[in-house]
Amino acid sequence: MTDLRSWIKAVSASPMKTIVKARNFEIIIDEPQEMGGTDEGASPVEYLIAAFSGCINVVAHLVAKEMNFELRGVEIDIYGDLNPAKLFGQSNEERAGFKQINLSIKADTDADEATLEKWLEAIESRCPISDNLQNPTPVKISYKKK
Amino acid sequence: MTDLRSWIKAVSASPMKTIVKARNFEIIIDEPQEMGGTDEGASPVEYLIAAFSGCINVVAHLVAKEMNFELRGVEIDIYGDLNPAKLFGQSNEERAGFKQINLSIKADTDADEATLEKWLEAIESRCPISDNLQNPTPVKISYKKK
Repeated sequence: MTDLRSWIKAVSASPMKTIVKARNFEIIIDEPQEMGGTDEGASPVEYLIAAFSGCINVVAHLVAKEMNFELRGVEIDIYGDLNPAKLFGQSNEERAGFKQINLSIKADTDADEATLEKWLEAIESRCPISDNLQNPTPVKISYKKK
Repeated sequence: MTDLRSWIKAVSASPMKTIVKARNFEIIIDEPQEMGGTDEGASPVEYLIAAFSGCINVVAHLVAKEMNFELRGVEIDIYGDLNPAKLFGQSNEERAGFKQINLSIKADTDADEATLEKWLEAIESRCPISDNLQNPTPVKISYKKK
Protein backbone atom coordinates (compact mmCIF):
# COMPACT_ATOMS: atom_id res chain seq x y z
CA MET A 1 0.00 0.00 0.00
CA THR A 2 1.17 3.53 -0.57
CA ASP A 3 2.09 5.77 2.35
CA LEU A 4 -0.47 8.14 3.80
CA ARG A 5 0.73 11.57 4.85
CA SER A 6 -0.85 13.45 7.77
CA TRP A 7 -0.02 17.04 8.56
CA ILE A 8 -1.04 19.92 10.77
CA LYS A 9 -0.24 23.65 10.99
CA ALA A 10 -0.24 25.28 14.40
CA VAL A 11 0.13 28.80 15.75
CA SER A 12 0.68 29.98 19.29
CA ALA A 13 -2.27 32.09 20.46
CA SER A 14 -0.33 32.50 23.73
CA PRO A 15 2.59 30.67 25.37
CA MET A 16 0.13 28.02 26.61
CA LYS A 17 -2.61 28.08 23.96
CA THR A 18 -2.19 26.60 20.49
CA ILE A 19 -4.58 26.77 17.56
CA VAL A 20 -4.13 23.84 15.19
CA LYS A 21 -5.46 23.33 11.68
CA ALA A 22 -5.78 19.73 10.48
CA ARG A 23 -7.46 19.75 7.05
CA ASN A 24 -10.81 21.47 7.65
CA PHE A 25 -10.67 21.07 11.44
CA GLU A 26 -9.55 23.50 14.12
CA ILE A 27 -8.25 22.11 17.39
CA ILE A 28 -7.77 24.32 20.46
CA ILE A 29 -5.08 23.16 22.88
CA ASP A 30 -4.51 24.93 26.19
CA GLU A 31 -3.33 24.32 29.73
CA PRO A 32 -5.42 24.42 32.93
CA GLN A 33 -5.23 27.63 34.97
CA GLU A 34 -3.09 25.94 37.64
CA MET A 35 -0.45 25.35 34.92
CA GLY A 36 -0.63 29.00 33.81
CA GLY A 37 -3.01 28.51 30.88
CA THR A 38 -6.47 29.84 30.11
CA ASP A 39 -8.17 26.40 30.09
CA GLU A 40 -9.87 26.87 26.72
CA GLY A 41 -9.12 23.35 25.53
CA ALA A 42 -7.69 20.04 26.65
CA SER A 43 -3.95 19.91 27.29
CA PRO A 44 -1.35 18.45 24.91
CA VAL A 45 -0.97 15.24 26.93
CA GLU A 46 -4.76 14.85 27.17
CA TYR A 47 -4.97 15.14 23.38
CA LEU A 48 -2.23 12.51 23.10
CA ILE A 49 -4.19 9.90 25.05
CA ALA A 50 -7.46 11.01 23.39
CA ALA A 51 -5.84 10.34 20.00
CA PHE A 52 -4.80 6.91 21.27
CA SER A 53 -8.41 6.07 22.23
CA GLY A 54 -9.62 7.07 18.75
CA CYS A 55 -7.04 4.80 17.16
CA ILE A 56 -7.96 1.88 19.42
CA ASN A 57 -11.66 2.28 18.55
CA VAL A 58 -10.97 2.05 14.81
CA VAL A 59 -8.62 -0.94 15.08
CA ALA A 60 -10.85 -2.74 17.63
CA HIS A 61 -13.75 -2.69 15.16
CA LEU A 62 -11.59 -3.51 12.14
CA VAL A 63 -10.12 -6.59 13.82
CA ALA A 64 -13.48 -7.76 15.22
CA LYS A 65 -14.91 -7.65 11.70
CA GLU A 66 -11.98 -9.68 10.34
CA MET A 67 -12.38 -12.19 13.17
CA ASN A 68 -16.11 -12.45 12.43
CA PHE A 69 -17.54 -11.49 15.77
CA GLU A 70 -20.01 -8.78 16.57
CA LEU A 71 -18.62 -5.79 18.44
CA ARG A 72 -21.49 -3.48 19.34
CA GLY A 73 -19.27 -0.80 20.82
CA VAL A 74 -16.36 0.00 23.10
CA GLU A 75 -15.67 2.27 26.03
CA ILE A 76 -12.03 3.17 26.54
CA ASP A 77 -10.37 4.58 29.64
CA ILE A 78 -6.79 5.81 29.46
CA TYR A 79 -4.57 7.40 32.06
CA GLY A 80 -0.91 8.13 32.50
CA ASP A 81 1.36 9.74 35.07
CA LEU A 82 4.26 12.05 34.40
CA ASN A 83 6.63 13.95 36.61
CA PRO A 84 6.81 17.57 35.38
CA ALA A 85 10.28 18.15 36.88
CA LYS A 86 12.14 17.67 33.58
CA LEU A 87 9.62 19.79 31.65
CA PHE A 88 10.19 22.63 34.14
CA GLY A 89 13.98 22.24 34.04
CA GLN A 90 14.20 21.20 37.69
CA SER A 91 15.54 17.66 37.40
CA ASN A 92 16.64 15.10 34.83
CA GLU A 93 16.12 12.14 37.14
CA GLU A 94 12.88 11.04 35.53
CA ARG A 95 11.80 11.07 31.89
CA ALA A 96 9.77 14.05 30.60
CA GLY A 97 6.77 12.11 29.34
CA PHE A 98 4.32 9.53 30.61
CA LYS A 99 6.11 6.76 32.50
CA GLN A 100 3.46 4.28 31.41
CA ILE A 101 0.11 4.53 29.66
CA ASN A 102 -2.75 2.43 31.03
CA LEU A 103 -5.58 1.63 28.70
CA SER A 104 -8.69 -0.42 29.45
CA ILE A 105 -11.33 -1.39 26.95
CA LYS A 106 -14.88 -2.35 27.86
CA ALA A 107 -16.20 -4.34 24.91
CA ASP A 108 -19.90 -4.84 24.19
CA THR A 109 -19.70 -8.30 22.63
CA ASP A 110 -20.60 -11.96 23.15
CA ALA A 111 -17.21 -13.24 21.89
CA ASP A 112 -15.42 -15.70 24.18
CA GLU A 113 -12.27 -14.98 26.15
CA ALA A 114 -9.90 -16.85 23.82
CA THR A 115 -11.19 -14.82 20.87
CA LEU A 116 -10.87 -11.57 22.79
CA GLU A 117 -7.30 -12.34 23.85
CA LYS A 118 -6.30 -12.68 20.18
CA TRP A 119 -8.30 -9.59 19.33
CA LEU A 120 -6.50 -7.54 21.99
CA GLU A 121 -3.08 -8.69 20.79
CA ALA A 122 -3.90 -7.71 17.19
CA ILE A 123 -5.21 -4.29 18.29
CA GLU A 124 -2.05 -3.54 20.23
CA SER A 125 0.23 -4.47 17.36
CA ARG A 126 -1.74 -2.86 14.52
CA CYS A 127 -2.80 0.48 16.03
CA PRO A 128 -0.45 3.14 14.59
CA ILE A 129 -0.43 5.20 17.79
CA SER A 130 0.28 2.15 19.94
CA ASP A 131 3.31 1.52 17.70
CA ASN A 132 4.51 5.14 17.83
CA LEU A 133 4.30 5.13 21.64
CA GLN A 134 5.69 1.68 22.40
CA ASN A 135 8.55 1.79 19.89
CA PRO A 136 11.04 4.59 19.19
CA THR A 137 9.88 7.02 16.52
CA PRO A 138 12.45 9.32 14.90
CA VAL A 139 11.54 12.98 15.24
CA LYS A 140 13.30 15.52 13.06
CA ILE A 141 13.00 19.04 14.46
CA SER A 142 14.19 22.18 12.72
CA TYR A 143 13.59 25.89 13.13
CA LYS A 144 13.87 29.12 11.27
CA LYS A 145 13.31 32.70 12.27
CA LYS A 146 10.13 34.36 11.13
CA MET B 1 7.88 17.30 42.06
CA THR B 2 4.84 15.06 42.44
CA ASP B 3 3.44 13.16 39.48
CA LEU B 4 0.60 14.61 37.45
CA ARG B 5 -2.08 12.22 36.25
CA SER B 6 -3.95 12.79 32.96
CA TRP B 7 -6.94 10.71 31.95
CA ILE B 8 -9.67 10.48 29.36
CA LYS B 9 -12.86 8.47 28.89
CA ALA B 10 -13.91 7.58 25.36
CA VAL B 11 -16.91 5.90 23.75
CA SER B 12 -17.34 4.64 20.21
CA ALA B 13 -20.10 6.57 18.46
CA SER B 14 -19.42 4.31 15.45
CA PRO B 15 -16.52 2.03 14.41
CA MET B 16 -14.67 5.12 13.13
CA LYS B 17 -15.97 7.92 15.35
CA THR B 18 -14.94 8.36 18.97
CA ILE B 19 -16.26 10.83 21.52
CA VAL B 20 -13.72 11.64 24.19
CA LYS B 21 -14.14 13.40 27.53
CA ALA B 22 -11.04 15.03 28.99
CA ARG B 23 -12.06 16.91 32.16
CA ASN B 24 -14.69 19.42 30.94
CA PHE B 25 -13.76 19.04 27.25
CA GLU B 26 -15.30 16.91 24.54
CA ILE B 27 -13.12 15.83 21.63
CA ILE B 28 -14.60 14.35 18.45
CA ILE B 29 -12.32 11.99 16.55
CA ASP B 30 -13.33 10.53 13.20
CA GLU B 31 -11.88 9.29 9.92
CA PRO B 32 -12.22 10.89 6.47
CA GLN B 33 -14.90 9.43 4.19
CA GLU B 34 -12.27 7.73 2.01
CA MET B 35 -11.23 5.75 5.10
CA GLY B 36 -14.84 4.80 5.82
CA GLY B 37 -15.57 7.46 8.43
CA THR B 38 -18.02 10.34 8.58
CA ASP B 39 -15.37 13.09 8.70
CA GLU B 40 -16.81 14.85 11.74
CA GLY B 41 -13.44 15.45 13.35
CA ALA B 42 -9.71 15.14 12.78
CA SER B 43 -8.30 11.60 12.67
CA PRO B 44 -6.42 9.90 15.52
CA VAL B 45 -3.00 10.44 13.89
CA GLU B 46 -3.84 14.08 13.17
CA TYR B 47 -4.71 14.54 16.86
CA LEU B 48 -1.40 12.90 17.77
CA ILE B 49 0.68 15.43 15.82
CA ALA B 50 -1.65 18.28 16.90
CA ALA B 51 -0.95 17.33 20.53
CA PHE B 52 2.77 17.38 19.75
CA SER B 53 2.51 20.95 18.40
CA GLY B 54 0.71 22.09 21.56
CA CYS B 55 3.44 20.59 23.71
CA ILE B 56 6.19 22.21 21.64
CA ASN B 57 4.50 25.63 21.94
CA VAL B 58 4.43 25.43 25.75
CA VAL B 59 8.02 24.22 26.10
CA ALA B 60 9.34 26.66 23.47
CA HIS B 61 8.01 29.61 25.48
CA LEU B 62 9.06 28.14 28.83
CA VAL B 63 12.66 27.63 27.68
CA ALA B 64 12.85 31.04 25.95
CA LYS B 65 11.81 32.69 29.21
CA GLU B 66 14.47 30.76 31.16
CA MET B 67 17.08 31.72 28.55
CA ASN B 68 16.01 35.36 28.79
CA PHE B 69 15.11 36.05 25.20
CA GLU B 70 11.88 37.37 23.82
CA LEU B 71 9.78 34.89 21.87
CA ARG B 72 6.82 36.70 20.37
CA GLY B 73 5.23 33.58 18.95
CA VAL B 74 5.75 30.35 17.02
CA GLU B 75 4.25 28.66 14.01
CA ILE B 76 4.66 24.90 13.93
CA ASP B 77 4.30 22.56 10.96
CA ILE B 78 4.29 18.81 11.51
CA TYR B 79 3.88 15.94 9.11
CA GLY B 80 4.44 12.23 9.10
CA ASP B 81 4.01 9.30 6.71
CA LEU B 82 2.70 5.89 7.56
CA ASN B 83 1.98 2.80 5.53
CA PRO B 84 -1.53 1.53 6.41
CA ALA B 85 -0.73 -2.06 5.34
CA LYS B 86 -0.15 -3.31 8.90
CA LEU B 87 -3.22 -1.49 10.25
CA PHE B 88 -5.34 -3.21 7.59
CA GLY B 89 -3.75 -6.62 8.25
CA GLN B 90 -2.22 -6.83 4.78
CA SER B 91 1.49 -6.89 5.59
CA ASN B 92 3.89 -6.78 8.54
CA GLU B 93 6.80 -5.51 6.49
CA GLU B 94 6.56 -1.94 7.73
CA ARG B 95 5.70 -0.60 11.16
CA ALA B 96 2.08 0.40 11.85
CA GLY B 97 2.75 4.01 12.88
CA PHE B 98 4.56 7.04 11.55
CA LYS B 99 7.99 6.11 10.20
CA GLN B 100 9.29 9.54 11.15
CA ILE B 101 7.74 12.76 12.40
CA ASN B 102 8.97 16.02 10.86
CA LEU B 103 8.49 19.17 12.85
CA SER B 104 9.50 22.69 11.86
CA ILE B 105 9.21 25.74 14.07
CA LYS B 106 9.07 29.29 12.77
CA ALA B 107 10.10 31.50 15.68
CA ASP B 108 9.28 35.20 15.95
CA THR B 109 12.38 36.33 17.85
CA ASP B 110 15.58 38.36 17.56
CA ALA B 111 17.70 35.74 19.39
CA ASP B 112 20.89 34.67 17.63
CA GLU B 113 21.50 31.28 16.05
CA ALA B 114 23.71 29.94 18.85
CA THR B 115 20.98 30.74 21.39
CA LEU B 116 18.31 29.16 19.22
CA GLU B 117 20.33 25.96 18.74
CA LYS B 118 20.47 25.51 22.53
CA TRP B 119 16.80 26.41 22.78
CA LEU B 120 15.84 23.76 20.22
CA GLU B 121 17.86 21.09 21.99
CA ALA B 122 16.17 21.87 25.33
CA ILE B 123 12.70 21.84 23.74
CA GLU B 124 13.30 18.44 22.17
CA SER B 125 14.51 16.89 25.41
CA ARG B 126 11.98 18.48 27.78
CA CYS B 127 8.71 18.19 25.81
CA PRO B 128 6.79 15.23 27.31
CA ILE B 129 5.29 14.21 23.97
CA SER B 130 8.68 14.35 22.23
CA ASP B 131 9.94 11.96 24.91
CA ASN B 132 6.95 9.60 24.59
CA LEU B 133 7.42 9.42 20.83
CA GLN B 134 11.19 9.20 20.60
CA ASN B 135 11.68 6.74 23.44
CA PRO B 136 9.78 3.54 24.20
CA THR B 137 6.75 4.06 26.44
CA PRO B 138 5.20 1.05 28.18
CA VAL B 139 1.53 0.63 27.35
CA LYS B 140 -0.59 -1.67 29.50
CA ILE B 141 -3.77 -2.72 27.73
CA SER B 142 -6.57 -4.73 29.31
CA TYR B 143 -10.19 -5.47 28.45
CA LYS B 144 -13.36 -6.65 30.00
CA LYS B 145 -16.77 -7.44 28.61
CA LYS B 146 -19.50 -4.90 29.14
